[in-house]
Amino acid sequence: MRLLEERILKDGLVMEGDVLKVDGFLNHQMDVQLFQAMAEEWKRLFAGCEINKILTIEASGIGIACIAGLSFGCPVVFAKKTKTRNIAGDVYRTQVKSYTHNNISEVIVSKKYLGADDRLLLIDDFLANGAALSGLLDLADMAGARVIGAGIAIEKAYQPGGKLLRERGLRIESLARISAMDDSGRIEFIS
Amino acid sequence: MRLLEERILKDGLVMEGDVLKVDGFLNHQMDVQLFQAMAEEWKRLFAGCEINKILTIEASGIGIACIAGLSFGCPVVFAKKTKTRNIAGDVYRTQVKSYTHNNISEVIVSKKYLGADDRLLLIDDFLANGAALSGLLDLADMAGARVIGAGIAIEKAYQPGGKLLRERGLRIESLARISAMDDSGRIEFIS
Repeated sequence: MRLLEERILKDGLVMEGDVLKVDGFLNHQMDVQLFQAMAEEWKRLFAGCEINKILTIEASGIGIACIAGLSFGCPVVFAKKTKTRNIAGDVYRTQVKSYTHNNISEVIVSKKYLGADDRLLLIDDFLANGAALSGLLDLADMAGARVIGAGIAIEKAYQPGGKLLRERGLRIESLARISAMDDSGRIEFIS
Repeated sequence: MRLLEERILKDGLVMEGDVLKVDGFLNHQMDVQLFQAMAEEWKRLFAGCEINKILTIEASGIGIACIAGLSFGCPVVFAKKTKTRNIAGDVYRTQVKSYTHNNISEVIVSKKYLGADDRLLLIDDFLANGAALSGLLDLADMAGARVIGAGIAIEKAYQPGGKLLRERGLRIESLARISAMDDSGRIEFIS
């Protein structure tokens, strides 16, 4: 998606440790008009797929997913990273390793909000190792929900997550696929 | 706001420990069409206030704030509850006690995304003790930003936060103000 790629080139910063900082528009300060354009692109890509729920993961997926929910006209569920006392009762739970935060989180979804009738679009801001997306797939599997596909803002295509998950049969629509980047500021996309 | 009050009566659950569970539409599964109606109500209430940025706090404020951002046509910043290595450089930081999670979080915002030119609308899902909202006010003060007001989904008006913050001069527009609730399921609103 040209609009997102141009924004990454304009405002993204490549930092030490293979970090692409896009916190000016994607995951700290959020350009919600850009999110709306991204949502419309996913809606075009997944047209006719009868998606009836969006599933994302706290925290940086939530904003993108909610605006996608408006485009798709469906509710959005976010998997929570810790069990709070406000979620009583039965939950599906799995573990997700965060390479960004260098920790493992337990991730949960209430059984009430994920079920066999659901045709899910998974949404997240980044795909690199695929840990978060794998966790969401686990939760969907536990619920017997059908995963129609995943909408990702930025995929680091040189990392293994996208390939592994596509080989498992997941349809992934990443709006910007980075083939290479380095500290000099170079960022290249797969067109 | 009648629509939100009716939804709370229909789908909200009063739990032990003064907990109002609204995770079916507000803060776990999210009814984004409802969020859009709430956003339009805040836009009506804050018409002419020239709000140019929305500030919220991770995690359950993000979805509501992003959809409000679409209505107001402005970017949304969310205060982060832990320092990740993806936020390098200078940040404003304060502490927020969570009565829900029974802990204290350090909350940060990058100095790049909050400044003296900002006319802020603060957004959050709940107002009870006012801890989260006070934290956002602290961050705005540190940045020299002007806080125009706060948009809250549900205020527990029998708890002290709303009164204290209004006495400090903050304009708070809560779309549902609960005057009393108990385990029998009774929920009453201030009309």
